[in-house]
Order: sequence, then structure tokens, then C-alpha cells
Amino acid sequence: MNTRTEKDFLGEKQIPADAPWGIHTARALENFPIPGSPVPVLLVSALAQVKKACALANKELGLLSSEKADAIISACEAFQVSGFKFRLSALQGGAGTSTNMMLNELIANKAGNGIHAIEDVNLHQSTNDVYPTAVKVAAIYGLRELAEKVEALQGAFQRLENRFAHIPTIGKTELVDAVPLTLGAEFGAFAEAFARDRWRTFKCEERLRVVNLGGTAVGTGLTAPRSYIFLVTDKLREVTGLGLSRGENLVDQTANADAFVEVSGIMKACASNLLKICNDLRLLHMIKKIKLPAVQAGSSIMPGKVNPVILESVMQIGIKVQANDFIVTECASRGSLQINEFMPLLASALLESMELLGAASEMLAKHAEGITADEGECERQFNSSVEIVTAFLPVIGYDRATELVEKFKQANRTDFKTYLIEELGEESVLKILSPQNLMAMGHRET
Amino acid sequence: MNTRTEKDFLGEKQIPADAPWGIHTARALENFPIPGSPVPVLLVSALAQVKKACALANKELGLLSSEKADAIISACEAFQVSGFKFRLSALQGGAGTSTNMMLNELIANKAGNGIHAIEDVNLHQSTNDVYPTAVKVAAIYGLRELAEKVEALQGAFQRLENRFAHIPTIGKTELVDAVPLTLGAEFGAFAEAFARDRWRTFKCEERLRVVNLGGTAVGTGLTAPRSYIFLVTDKLREVTGLGLSRGENLVDQTANADAFVEVSGIMKACASNLLKICNDLRLLHMIKKIKLPAVQAGSSIMPGKVNPVILESVMQIGIKVQANDFIVTECASRGSLQINEFMPLLASALLESMELLGAASEMLAKHAEGITADEGECERQFNSSVEIVTAFLPVIGYDRATELVEKFKQANRTDFKTYLIEELGEESVLKILSPQNLMAMGHRET
Amino acid sequence: MNTRTEKDFLGEKQIPADAPWGIHTARALENFPIPGSPVPVLLVSALAQVKKACALANKELGLLSSEKADAIISACEAFQVSGFKFRLSALQGGAGTSTNMMLNELIANKAGNGIHAIEDVNLHQSTNDVYPTAVKVAAIYGLRELAEKVEALQGAFQRLENRFAHIPTIGKTELVDAVPLTLGAEFGAFAEAFARDRWRTFKCEERLRVVNLGGTAVGTGLTAPRSYIFLVTDKLREVTGLGLSRGENLVDQTANADAFVEVSGIMKACASNLLKICNDLRLLHMIKKIKLPAVQAGSSIMPGKVNPVILESVMQIGIKVQANDFIVTECASRGSLQINEFMPLLASALLESMELLGAASEMLAKHAEGITADEGECERQFNSSVEIVTAFLPVIGYDRATELVEKFKQANRTDFKTYLIEELGEESVLKILSPQNLMAMGHRET
Amino acid sequence: MNTRTEKDFLGEKQIPADAPWGIHTARALENFPIPGSPVPVLLVSALAQVKKACALANKELGLLSSEKADAIISACEAFQVSGFKFRLSALQGGAGTSTNMMLNELIANKAGNGIHAIEDVNLHQSTNDVYPTAVKVAAIYGLRELAEKVEALQGAFQRLENRFAHIPTIGKTELVDAVPLTLGAEFGAFAEAFARDRWRTFKCEERLRVVNLGGTAVGTGLTAPRSYIFLVTDKLREVTGLGLSRGENLVDQTANADAFVEVSGIMKACASNLLKICNDLRLLHMIKKIKLPAVQAGSSIMPGKVNPVILESVMQIGIKVQANDFIVTECASRGSLQINEFMPLLASALLESMELLGAASEMLAKHAEGITADEGECERQFNSSVEIVTAFLPVIGYDRATELVEKFKQANRTDFKTYLIEELGEESVLKILSPQNLMAMGHRET
Repeated sequence: MNTRTEKDFLGEKQIPADAPWGIHTARALENFPIPGSPVPVLLVSALAQVKKACALANKELGLLSSEKADAIISACEAFQVSGFKFRLSALQGGAGTSTNMMLNELIANKAGNGIHAIEDVNLHQSTNDVYPTAVKVAAIYGLRELAEKVEALQGAFQRLENRFAHIPTIGKTELVDAVPLTLGAEFGAFAEAFARDRWRTFKCEERLRVVNLGGTAVGTGLTAPRSYIFLVTDKLREVTGLGLSRGENLVDQTANADAFVEVSGIMKACASNLLKICNDLRLLHMIKKIKLPAVQAGSSIMPGKVNPVILESVMQIGIKVQANDFIVTECASRGSLQINEFMPLLASALLESMELLGAASEMLAKHAEGITADEGECERQFNSSVEIVTAFLPVIGYDRATELVEKFKQANRTDFKTYLIEELGEESVLKILSPQNLMAMGHRET
Repeated sequence: MNTRTEKDFLGEKQIPADAPWGIHTARALENFPIPGSPVPVLLVSALAQVKKACALANKELGLLSSEKADAIISACEAFQVSGFKFRLSALQGGAGTSTNMMLNELIANKAGNGIHAIEDVNLHQSTNDVYPTAVKVAAIYGLRELAEKVEALQGAFQRLENRFAHIPTIGKTELVDAVPLTLGAEFGAFAEAFARDRWRTFKCEERLRVVNLGGTAVGTGLTAPRSYIFLVTDKLREVTGLGLSRGENLVDQTANADAFVEVSGIMKACASNLLKICNDLRLLHMIKKIKLPAVQAGSSIMPGKVNPVILESVMQIGIKVQANDFIVTECASRGSLQINEFMPLLASALLESMELLGAASEMLAKHAEGITADEGECERQFNSSVEIVTAFLPVIGYDRATELVEKFKQANRTDFKTYLIEELGEESVLKILSPQNLMAMGHRET
Repeated sequence: MNTRTEKDFLGEKQIPADAPWGIHTARALENFPIPGSPVPVLLVSALAQVKKACALANKELGLLSSEKADAIISACEAFQVSGFKFRLSALQGGAGTSTNMMLNELIANKAGNGIHAIEDVNLHQSTNDVYPTAVKVAAIYGLRELAEKVEALQGAFQRLENRFAHIPTIGKTELVDAVPLTLGAEFGAFAEAFARDRWRTFKCEERLRVVNLGGTAVGTGLTAPRSYIFLVTDKLREVTGLGLSRGENLVDQTANADAFVEVSGIMKACASNLLKICNDLRLLHMIKKIKLPAVQAGSSIMPGKVNPVILESVMQIGIKVQANDFIVTECASRGSLQINEFMPLLASALLESMELLGAASEMLAKHAEGITADEGECERQFNSSVEIVTAFLPVIGYDRATELVEKFKQANRTDFKTYLIEELGEESVLKILSPQNLMAMGHRET
Repeated sequence: MNTRTEKDFLGEKQIPADAPWGIHTARALENFPIPGSPVPVLLVSALAQVKKACALANKELGLLSSEKADAIISACEAFQVSGFKFRLSALQGGAGTSTNMMLNELIANKAGNGIHAIEDVNLHQSTNDVYPTAVKVAAIYGLRELAEKVEALQGAFQRLENRFAHIPTIGKTELVDAVPLTLGAEFGAFAEAFARDRWRTFKCEERLRVVNLGGTAVGTGLTAPRSYIFLVTDKLREVTGLGLSRGENLVDQTANADAFVEVSGIMKACASNLLKICNDLRLLHMIKKIKLPAVQAGSSIMPGKVNPVILESVMQIGIKVQANDFIVTECASRGSLQINEFMPLLASALLESMELLGAASEMLAKHAEGITADEGECERQFNSSVEIVTAFLPVIGYDRATELVEKFKQANRTDFKTYLIEELGEESVLKILSPQNLMAMGHRET
């Protein structure tokens, strides 16, 4: 293999002659031979935007020549667009230094002759300010993409709410028959939960808009010119189109990662809704109130078996997001003094959660389109359940209701609604058990 | 033992003659013989307020006689004030039914002759609406109390920020010496994190203000008069003084517990700050930058040993709050269909977290008052660290800085600041290393 | 209030004249004003046993006078027997020092004139060796008690396995009808899982038998006579009746808490079985294959509603044990250098898990006794399910089976078993669908 | 794109003409468009071994022609060797059906003409028995590989134990100076913890040796010949070389996943050791007792900065393994009735943990080789610490020791050891503070 020699303060190292990176990357690749998760593409792309903003600020203030700055800027754009696939492990140590150095080296290499990875590309920067800033930028993009997908999910369930609005059904509490409502109302509750998720995802962004760019190593801006510090966040705002602002206390912003814990904690609420609702859908499928669309064969020996595989997959995503929230919290709470050294794992877990929740939302929304009600079965269960008598309590009172149930049971019948019609008259029964009445928020006092 | 006989649909049961509760409570006490955590007092008190609001609404609408209503209302007030200590386990099954029934029975017993626990005290209520509503009321009170304590904590650290503002020190990243800043700035970063915690705690309340009171069993308000449903939340607002409102979709509010996951997730951000900051304080004590106040003897054989016991205790609280967040998420995500059956454990974990965070905040704020800087040691470490050369980079450049460090090391000296004064002049060195300059957000371009 | 004055190296302090404890306890009570969990009784009792063993060793070697030793020994026995209820918080900092000092002071107080809490009661001890040793002793007792309860639980389910052995039923995979088996087999699988839990609980003890008693502050035995170090574990073995041994490397045993993580991780497997199996029972109750015993009224407006409250309670215990496992792991992994400073919370969580699992096992075993099968419903579901055709595959082949199902569906019938009898003959059908055949591990090749 | 048409009971589907898989795989790829983790290679390889064993059994019993069987067997070997990289998501729903079907199709395709993916390759199998069996096989291989790496890790620390055995140092408890020991003893404690990890990893295998192969859909062996059921595990033992056995209760083995929870819980103990020990190493590096090898540049502006990046990376792996343990527990405890539908995520998390722990062990073992003691600094800290007086307590008593410390402090000196020599004589002091004496498990009674 052809190699070239590079040098840093640890000594010389041979690097493949055609590698687009340099010695710092080469060392990192050797230092972290960890199978599995590479650095998230979304994060690299965001970091490229941050570096572009820095180059723009340096250029405008004359701290970097226009030639150099322009070369760096277009290299940054390339990495931002191409979604370059990093080989570096997301579990690297060093607080993100290796990711930052790799991108510095890649950009310098792409920018061409005379551009130095550290002196030019990384000018007035520290991993400790550009990396957390990039995590925030990536997370905001992630949230926005997610919010759209959750909105579509909400829409899908709202359509089911409408489609099932006319179907009376017996509610279940603690997995036991309770009082009646409509199937539409059950799906309306799902849609409402997703509406909160959308709002949550949307609101989360607020917590990420304050960045520590310009703070350099520990938030004091040491080695950076003040004019640069005051300009660079404006440039980042321009580059990203996001409403970012510089933190008032950059020492704090550099040291503390609690904003990520908060965002992850809020994402976890979305995950808990997915888990809860997908399990509900499995139960409704199990008791035959709804039919899930068949998306693949469930068994080689039972041809008609339709398993709720999409729901199971979404539930697994919910579990994984919970696990990622644990990771984010651990990483944040174990950070020490001036920076958070566990940011690489934190970032990877947080961004993965957003991606996974997005995939889950899309999968579930698509699946929801095919969900149908088994109206016959809903009707059968509704008509035969003695619990529908609760709808008559305001009219006939508790004692009469109990008496009706007792007599019905003694008669060994299974058609309770028919029995009620016989006892109370068809008009009254049909009116009281109508979907409109069941969902009419209490009864009019008489 | 003297007993009296009570009866429910499962049959008769003997109850201690002087027990202030009835058969439902007696069964629950037998059903859940679980050691440890009883139902939180704060929750019982909130539930008493909810029941008072229901009685007020029933009274105003003439659904309950004034005599009965008044008797119930003053009984409710008694439980609300006295912080009655429940023996019932917080790990009870049944979605809170037992807690609700116990309070119904206790109130009926206290209200005296002719008041029926279910027909009067529980009138137009279901555990499924009063219980989650009470959890929200209790949690809002818990948050408000917590917010005050976190504010005091923030204040304590702001005072330390000011007290230590004049002390230069070497920052540490990844536990290794980094660039200089002031000790005050380190404490300012802590104070800022607590400021976010305060804001978080304060904002959380929003997520809990929407209640499902009036929704009865599954959120449709079945068996309750519409006039009551529309009135009872107003009454609860009056009773509690909290800005509560009725949910637009009570089926959703009754079925889904994601709001609690969100609140708990946000609380967890507070816990992660406590963990991070208390560990930092332990490290600063370890490396002798600060002295923690001695609050108890640390060893029987080493008289002067002062252990960071308060910080360790607060860290343990942080861990417990993380564990409680796990519980809240599990409970919420495992709920099924029309209600969340795991609300008792959820409520207990959530309210415990608020109480524990409050205790931790008070302990830490009090402890912080006694923290002192070891200025001599800070100065010694600062003056002997070659890292202070980084403050001179904007003035002397990287190459000259490196050269100075090399020569100093070759001279085998330990007084780097003195050496710098010799090389660069006293005025310049003192100015550049002054606290003002170290914290001056970058340098002026020359 | 009458007070007496005590003094330690921090200064003087007033203590209630009649308090059975001294200044160290008084300071600890003030230092940790944390609501909720007190130090576990089981732990105090175990620590009293450890201190008794130390006194016995000191006495035998003439390091403590017989009078003093005997006074201390009987005081230790008192605390061991009485299960004294500590007020001290389980979330105390200081690695257990406060619990140790409180017991030293209580024992000295009970032992009477001339016994010094530190010089006599704590002679040749350090919190760092007696406390972790006591946690292990308490945990072993906890495991033994738990193992008995799990054994009873296994027995209860084995009885159900037998009771339901004759009932054919349709299995469910992914909540969808699968191939047939017997209801007894389903309960046999539960019993088998509990059998593993029993074995687990039993085997766990091995991991806790190695103690660091005699290691004093950091495991080197500093300040203790060698003869004492070599004797004291023998004494503890006598006092406790447990097969304990001194660790070969006491520095390791004093520093590392991984054995507790392992034990807690194994306990968590028990918790996961409880969660899984109780949820299964809820599902079987929901689909009416079994009837759970009614233990309390489930609703005020639906008289017959029987909720699975015991199962829900046990599931909540499962969740809590999972949370406690998180706590144990956090505490162990956050320990530093020579000891684990988070042992108080670790111990509390671990011992609580054992107690809770014991309570859950008892509750579930008692509940299981009352579980009945709804044979009629099982039969109805079995007879009408086309999935029973899978039992005929080895005989009639896949194509014929498919054909039968198709024709049956076209005929719009619901009595599949009857249909099969019509097509395949009664003898053959009854034999193939017999419980014996369904459970006969595959078919004989023909 | 050229396509071919395939068909299943959901209908026809176009598949790329050259795809080595079939319709079931094609549907799965569409159903689970989830970014990130693919099915673990180790799992696919193990599943290929399981299928080979099935083919061998079918062949031996004449249930499959020799030609077909041989073609299948060599195809299985290809997948077992090549470590084919699956594109299918590890978060797929369906309990592993898609992974099983994909491998069936790939094997059929490779085996060539006339081999049917289901009728031949999957003969007498169900996903529900082959998949969990393959997870166990893969996990056992994973454990064995891990055990070797942990052994090497233990060795690396034992070498450091020896290398540092002569260096006295002051221990730290609760991050504060405690009594003296040797640096070697500190590293010996690390080595001992890793020895337990090795033993743990080794013993874990026991819990995975019982498989449900032959149980088919729900553990009853339905549709498989008895002779096959009794033979196939023998074949698997031959193919894998592992000491596997058929479970006595296959219904249980098919339904319950608690063995995985136990194994994962035990793995977590390894993770907690890595977290604890790596943090200790960071602290020892921070306080300059040891020097970590420099593996990459830590800062662009501070040339000498050596960050503990390897330790941080290993700690992140520890956190990830904890998160994976959460996932395993969730998946196991959420399983329902006859199988565990969340096995795909469970398997992925479990196997990832083993791989990551292996990588961490290798990284840390390699890093450990380069760790050196800073003997000068250890000596300086030791000689100046008043805590060394504790080593003299058995000789001079507590009062004299206290007096010496007081006088030393009054003299404002920093050379405590020199002072002790002056007061107590050189011979005595050197003997008492010798490494041999410090580590001599207590003192001889005089």
C-alpha cells in the first residue's frame, strides 16, 4: 500500500496515500476499533454547517483570506450536501475531538492546496464549542423532520376517528369490559395523544436554540477575537436558517448538557405513546374489534395468520428510544467540570431517537390507513354486553338496572340489547345507545 | 376485638368496630400486604380537594342536599389539612380505586350520620376521573414547592459566583488541565444550570393543568349530569387556586398518561444537573480548590477527614429520581385502552421525585453557604501551570508560547507565572492573567 | 426539652437527654432531612450480628474485657431481635458511616456504663468493612426468605397445571390464534419459569458469601490485629449460621460492588417473569379462558366488574424491582477508588427488591389458588377455531387441510370441530384433538 | 430493472431478477424501512448452523432426500462461514420470522434447483423454535469470545499490579485521603474484579444451553415427527460443538425469555466494573499518580494535553451495555403468551453488548500496557500526607499519633515523613511504611 507520512506531537505516522483524511483521523480510527454505530451522518452535516459559519465570520472580519475562506466554504457545503458516511465510531472518547478533527482534515483535503486543517479550517474554534453547537443544529433539524411525520401520523388517526365515529363499542378498563363509547372515540384519543407529541416535538426546539459557538475551549472565548465571537452565531443563523442565539453564559453552555436531557425526556413521552397505542391496537385486533392490514405472511403452517408485525416493530422502536433516553441522561450526568466528555454517545443516542421515532411514525401512519373496523363483531360484543346498561342509569336508576341485568342472566340469554328493547322500548333504547348519545358528555338533568 | 359487619357485592366482612374506614378499605388492606411505601400524603390531600370540588358542584346544582354537601365539604377540608397518613400501599392494583374508596369511606365516616361513601361522597365521580385529576393537583403543588427551593439553590450558588469571582483557576476538561478561567465562573455555570431547573420546574405546570374531572369512567361523562360536568372544574379551580381547565377530549385525558412522562422527563433534567454538579464539587474538593463545610466526622481513626456526605446524599437522590422516571415511563407506556391501570405507582414515583428534589435542593443550598475557596491552593495551581500560557496566545502567538513552555521545562522550574513575568514583564502578565481579562469573552483584535 | 451535651471533633452539640443515641447520630439526623425511606430494618439487624461477631472475636483474643464484650454482645442481640426501626434516611451520604455510628451509639447506650461507642463497640472495625459485610448478610437472609416464597408460588402454578391439564385450548402467538395446546401446558410453562426463579434466588447466595470483614478502612486491615482479622469471619459464620468466608483480596472486596449488581441483575429476571406472567394472566382473563378470583369491587356503577388488581399490583412490583436494579447498577458503577460511597442507596434498593418480590410471590400464589378455567368458553373457542386443523397436518397433509378450511369458510359455519368430525370421522378427530395427543411432542412417523 | 414475479398468500410481487432472496424477504425489506442497526451477523451465522442441524436430522431420518439435504447443508455452511451482511432491520416485528424467512430464501437460492425455502429448508421448523435457539447459539459463541478478551484484560492489570507493588500511596475513600496502601494493591483490586468478570462470562453459558429446537410453533412439536424432535438437538450439538440440550418443557422454553434477562443482567455487572475502574483510572491520572499513554492529540492549542479518550470510550460502552440490558429486560417482560414477539430487538441488544464488551476489553487491555506510575508524585503525596500516621496507630497509639499531627501542623511543615523519622527514628518509620508492612493484613499483636 502506498503511504504518505504525517506528523503530530506524538510522532510520525504512515497514512494511505490516497486517504482523504490525515493523521488525527488515522489515530482515531485505530484508537476506537468498535463494531457497530458510526458517527451519525446528520451530525457531520451539521458540523460542516457550523464550520462554514466560522469561515464566513473569519472571512468577513479579515481573519482569513477570501481565497482560503471560499475554498473552505465550498468544501463545507460538499460535506453538508453529500451526507458523507463516516467510519469513525459513535462511541469514540474525547468529547467529539476526533469527529471534529476528521472533518477538519476532510475539509482541508477537499479545499485543496495550502489549507491547513487546524490553522485554517478550525480557526477560532474548539471541539468544545463547535461540536455541541453542531449537535444542537442536527437535533433541531431532526425535530423538524420528526414533527412533520408525527403530524401525518396524527392525521391518519384522525381519519380513523371519523371513519369509526358511528360504531358503538364497549370500553375496557384494566382489560375488563367497562362502559360503552364509540370506536371512533378510542381512535380520537390516539389522535389526540399524537397531537400532543407533535406539539412537544415542535416546542422542544426552544431548548436547543442557545449555542456556545465562539466560546472555544471552556466558554471564555479564549484565543478568539471578540469581534468574531459576536459575529459567528449570526453567520450560523444565516447558514442554517435556524433561530439560534449565543448563550449569555458560555461557560455554562459549554459545561452543562441538561438541555439534551430535557429534550430526550420529552421525546420519551412520544415513545411512551407509541408503546401504549400500538399495544392497544394489538389488543383491539386480538379481540377482533379491528382488523390490521396483512403486510406479510405470519406463519408457514397457518396460511391466514396475520401478525401485528408493524406494531411490534414500532413498539421495539419505543423501547429503543427509552434506552437512548437512559444513555442521554447518563452521559449528561457523568460529565465533569468544564465540558461534557461523553457528548459523542449522547449525540448519537439523541439523534438516533429522532430518526427512529420518525421511521416509526411513518410506518404506523401507513399501517393505520389500512386498519378497518370489524363492525359485525363490534356490534355483537356491544349487543351482548350487560355493561351497556350503564348508559341507562341516568334514566332508569341503579336499582332497576341491576334488576334488569339479574333477570337477563337468569333467562340465560345472550342478546342483552334485544332484551332491553323488549323491556324499555325500541325508541328509547336506540336513542340512548346511539353513538351521539354515548359521546354526549353526560346527560341532561331531567 | 370488637367488630362490625359490612357488606359489598363480594359478601360480608368483619371490620374493627372503631375503624374510621369501611369494607372496601378493609379488603384493600388485605389485598395489598406490601411492605414500604404508603400512598403519598400529598396525593390524599389533593384528592380531598377534588372531592370537595365535586361536593360543591353537586350542591350548587341541587344534586346533593346542602346538609349532606356541607358535611362532606368539611370532612374533605379535614383530610386536606391534616395530611392524614395512609396505611394503604402505593403499589396497590386497581388504578387508584382503593385510594379513592378509602377516602370516600373516611370522609363518610367523618361527615357522620347518613352520608354514604359511594352514593354521596363519590357522587358523579369515578376513580378514573378523580384520581388522575388529584395526581395532577398534587403534582402542581409539588412543582411549586420545588420551584421555590430550586430558586433558593440558584441564589446560594450565585452568591458563591460573586464570592469567588476574583479567583483565577485552571479549568479542567476530561479531568485534565485546560485553559484558565475564574472559580467564580465555574460556580456561575452551576447557578445558571439551576436557573434553568427553576424555569423548567415552573414551566412543567402547564403540562398538568388540563384535567379529566367530570369524565367519569372512560371520559364520556356517563352517569353524570352535563351541568355538573361543566361546573365541577370551575369549583376545583376555586378550591385549589390553580389554573386548571377541563380537557377538550376527556376520553384521551382519561386513557393517556403521557403528560406525566413528559413532566417526569423534565424533572430528570434537574436530577442530572444535581448529579453533575455535586460530582464537580466533590472533584473540586478533592483537588483542594474548594473546602466543603464539615458536617459530621468522616472517620474514627482519621480525625480531620471531612467527607462530602451531603453531596453523596444529593447524588443518591439524583439516582433515585432517574429510577422514578423509569417507573413513570413504564407505568404510562404499559397502560391499556380506556385508563391507565398503573397510575398508583406512577403517582407515587412522580410525587416522590418532587419531594426528593426539594429536599436535595434545600440540603445543597444550605451546604453551599459553607463552601469556601482555598485561594492559596488555587493560586499555587494556577501559577505553576503551563496552561496559563494559552491566555497569551493572542498576544505572543503560538510559536513563542511553545518556546516559552519548552524553556521553562528545561529550566526545571515550577513557578511558571514568575517565569512569564521575567520574560514578558509584570504589567503585561498581571493584566492578561487578571480575572477581568480571563473572563472577557475573547480578545480585542489588534 | 432536657438535653445533654456531647462533643466530637466538630465541636459540642446538645442532644435530647433521653435519646438512646449520641452526637454522631444527632448530626446525621440533621444532615439528611430526607422524606421517605428509612434505613432497612433487615440491614440494621444484620449489622448488629456483624458487631456481635466482632465483639466475640475481640473477647476471645483478649482484646476486649469479658465484661465489656458480654455487655456489647447482649446489646447486639437486642437489636438483632427487635428489628429496631431506624429514623435515619436510607439516602444518607457517607458510605454507611451514619448507620454504623448510630448502631454503635445505640449499642453502647444499651450496653450501659463505661461502654464507648467507638473504642469498644466499633473496636477493630471500620464502616468500610462492617457495612458491606452487613449488606451481604442481610441480602442472604433476604434471598433465603424469597426462595421459600417463590417455591410456594411455583407450587401454586403446578397445581393449576394439573388442574387444567385436560383442557384443550388455542395457543396465541403475537396475540393472534396459533396452534392448539392445553391450558395446563400454559400454566406448566408459568410454573417452570418460577422454578427457574427459585433456582436463581437460591444460587445467588454464592455471590454474596465472600465478605471483607477485618479489612477495616481500605481492605488492608490497618489498625486491626492479624489474629483478629483471621478470627472474626469465623465468628460471623457462627453468629449468622451462614457459609461466609473472608475474601482473598480484601482491597478488592472493599472497593468493588459488582457482586451486588450481579445479584440484582439476576433478581431482575424474576421481576421480568412476574411482569410477563401476570400480563398473560390478565390476557387470559380478558379473553375469558380463565376467571380470576374477585378480591374487591372493581366499580361503583358496574357491580359485576372484577378487575385484575392483584396482577396489576404484582406488575407494579416488577417495575419497581427493575427500577431498583437500575439504582444498584448506578451506585456500584459510580463508586470511586477504595470504597463505594453510594452503598446506602444500593443496599436499600437491593433489600427492598427482595422484600417486594417476596410480597409479590405471596400475593400471586394466594391469588392463583382461586383461578379457575372457564371450560365452556375454552371449548367454544377451541371448537370454532380453524387453527385446530394444524393438529391434522401430519395425517392429512397441508393441501387437504387448506381445502377443508376453505370449504368450511364457504359454508359460513362456526363449528369447525363438528365439521371436521363430519369430514374425518369422530374417532380420528377426537383422538387427534385429545389433550394427550396435543401435548405428545410431535407425531409418530407413519 | 429486470424483475421476476413471486407469490404468497397476500398476492403477487415483483422482485429484482437477480435478488438472491424471495417474496418474504422483499416484503420484510419494505415493511421495516428503519435506519441503523441491521440483523447481527453473528445471529445469521448461528441460524445457518441451526438450519444445517435440522437438515442433517431430516436427512438421517429419511425425511428429506440426500440430494436436497446435502445441497441445503452446503448452503448453510456458506452462510455460516461468510458472515453474510443482512440488510434487514434488527428492529423488525414478527418475532424473527423475517430473519428466518430471509435465510430460508437465501439458502434455497444458493442450494439451487428444486429446493423450496419453506418445504425443504424450513422443514419441521418454526421461527419460534429455530430463532430462539439460534440466539442462544450466537450468545454462547459471543460469551466465549468475550471470556478470552476479559482474561487478557485481567492479565494486563495483573502485570500492573506487580509492576506497581513497591509504590506506597495514600488511598482515597469518598474522594478524600484515607489510609495508605500500595499502588499495586489498587491495580490488584482492578484485576480481581476483571477475574470475576471472566468467571461470570464463563458461567453465563450454562443459562443458555437449554434450547427449544424441535418444539416448532408453541413448544409442542406439532407437525414435526417425534424421531426428528429427539434427534435434532444432537445434530445441533455436533454442528456447533456446544454442550446444548433439549429443554424438558419446550412450551416454557418457547414462551419465556428470562434466561436472556439473567445473562444480560450478569453482563451488566461487567459493564459496571468497566465504568467504575475506568473512572478510577481517570481520577488517578488526574491526581497524577499514574500517567496514561498518549494515543492522540487532546487539544490544538495545548500541545501536551493528553486526554483519557480510551477510558471515556470504554465508559461509553459501559453505558451502552446498561442501556442494552434495559432493552433485553423490556423485551422479555413484554412478551405474551406462547412466544416472545420482541425477540429480534432482544437478540440484537444482547449480542451487541457482548461485542461491545469484547471491544472495550481489548481497548482497555492494550491501553493498560502503556500505563506508568508517576513514582515521584506518588512519593511526594505519600510523604507529605498526615494520613500515613494511621500506619503507626498499632505502635504508638491514637493519642501520640494525634499529638504528632498537631505539632507537625503547628510547625507549618509539609514533609510529614521526614518529621516522623525525626520523631520516631528512621528504621522504625521505614519499616512501618514499607510496602510489605502496609499490605500485611493487620499487625502482629505485641
